[in-house]
Amino acid sequence: MKLLAVGSVAFDAIETPFGKTGKILGGAATFIGLAASAMKTEVSLVSVVGGDFPQEYFDLLKSKNINIDGVEIIKNGKSFFWSGKYHNDLNSRDTLITEVNVLADFDPKIPEHSADAEVLLLGNLDPAVQLSVLDKMKKRPELVILDTMNFWMDIALENLMKIIAKTDVISINDEEARQLSGEYSLVKAAKKIREMGPKFVIIKKGEHGALLFHESKIFAIPALPLEDVFDPTGAGDTFAGGFAAYIAKKGKFDFETMKSALIIGSALASFTVEKFGTERIQNVTSEDLTDRINRFKELTTFEALV
Amino acid sequence: MKLLAVGSVAFDAIETPFGKTGKILGGAATFIGLAASAMKTEVSLVSVVGGDFPQEYFDLLKSKNINIDGVEIIKNGKSFFWSGKYHNDLNSRDTLITEVNVLADFDPKIPEHSADAEVLLLGNLDPAVQLSVLDKMKKRPELVILDTMNFWMDIALENLMKIIAKTDVISINDEEARQLSGEYSLVKAAKKIREMGPKFVIIKKGEHGALLFHESKIFAIPALPLEDVFDPTGAGDTFAGGFAAYIAKKGKFDFETMKSALIIGSALASFTVEKFGTERIQNVTSEDLTDRINRFKELTTFEALV
Repeated sequence: MKLLAVGSVAFDAIETPFGKTGKILGGAATFIGLAASAMKTEVSLVSVVGGDFPQEYFDLLKSKNINIDGVEIIKNGKSFFWSGKYHNDLNSRDTLITEVNVLADFDPKIPEHSADAEVLLLGNLDPAVQLSVLDKMKKRPELVILDTMNFWMDIALENLMKIIAKTDVISINDEEARQLSGEYSLVKAAKKIREMGPKFVIIKKGEHGALLFHESKIFAIPALPLEDVFDPTGAGDTFAGGFAAYIAKKGKFDFETMKSALIIGSALASFTVEKFGTERIQNVTSEDLTDRINRFKELTTFEALV
Repeated sequence: MKLLAVGSVAFDAIETPFGKTGKILGGAATFIGLAASAMKTEVSLVSVVGGDFPQEYFDLLKSKNINIDGVEIIKNGKSFFWSGKYHNDLNSRDTLITEVNVLADFDPKIPEHSADAEVLLLGNLDPAVQLSVLDKMKKRPELVILDTMNFWMDIALENLMKIIAKTDVISINDEEARQLSGEYSLVKAAKKIREMGPKFVIIKKGEHGALLFHESKIFAIPALPLEDVFDPTGAGDTFAGGFAAYIAKKGKFDFETMKSALIIGSALASFTVEKFGTERIQNVTSEDLTDRINRFKELTTFEALV
């Protein structure tokens, strides 16, 4: 199935307890594209950058078989730029700089070849833009996956609720699920969020793994235990990208497929956090991925209990 | 195999956002005994209570096939009493009252019939007492399991390190693992703790499940997602009791058996938190336990990934 994803293609500058970067490649759509590429799944990105976006980054994305026909270049504009500093535990961070730039007036253009994509991933972005992408599709995709964050709950709740109502799968973290639902218990939170529209609710818990809720069913996975998380930037986007790519590849939307997709997304995200920015996820080989999935099986599989 | 457990048999008074209790039955050994009972595994408890300990609580424990020959009664003393108030998220609590009472001079007496127990569970207690129990065994048990908490790291670190060195399996929570090892990463923390003695390290993460470390192997389980955690008191003790009981029943100490034991301990702990104190765990039927283990399988089992 065709996979289309919308999100930012941008610059990040990151500081963690392990070091800091200059301006490097970042953005939700970038990580989504690289995750799909690691899954050998074709993906088209819809995004916008400024004239300052370097050719080498375009070349990198193209070399990974990521279709960027839908990435508009505003020659006299500047690309979105985010800079953040992570605290010692890497579970929280301060935003140092947000320059919205060309993303402020982002009017997404969907390439003709992708307007009938069966799977649409609405990466973390202004809900108004997510709504407009859905409107511009030739027909309603068979599966709409939404990734969002607390920022949009704070400043754009009305539009966020509109796009959530039109979504099949939502991916948010535990604190966001609590904020969105007003429930502390994640079981209750997921129930309330399903009542807002999505049939599937994914709650990401960082180093503690993720939960998938559907009807009365729950599936839980741990995160792969890592000696160190180096840089969490892009982990959620990578997860969403890997999840969507697996589903597009399988062309099935049942609970079992979603469970497998959750594992793939999580396995891919575990690469992203090992180095700064896209450095690790852009170099994942098939062998790397197989090896990590096997580690996942070892981590979670037990013999039948007597 | 014979299972012997040492720990407190005591009174608790608990306040949570859902209500509060008067003085009720509590104590690490109590929860351990009830967990073993739910597993239909014989267990002997070593503990001490005061003359104020009601006959009905003794009767309850006996009715559950828990051997209390090793529970000494100090007629003119008072039983250990702990009172605590949980915060809204139930992940943290304030201790309101700790009356150590007869536990202050606890000189554990091991019944003749249990001095050769193959599996010894040293429940959460002063490490000096844990050391003395191990010394008093007729021979070194085949498996020594240690449960402890940050309180002993703060006030009795030297003795704690001595008993850790003599332990095969240690069960602590994530914050305690970090405190004990000085490492934030749980993978690194477990490695350092294994260097202190235990071949198996269990790190409990409350609502996020638990990790089991052995040599280069890691096993992870989620916690069963519950609509509400009502009262976490005794969850760690129940977990340790269920874990030890499963191993004693199987009579095997390999990694696969430990994995299953982790699931059993976790399943039993999920009962304890559903009501105040021992109210729920003391009424778990075989059907209840089977049902919960099946929920665990559903929660964690996925088809092979292609």
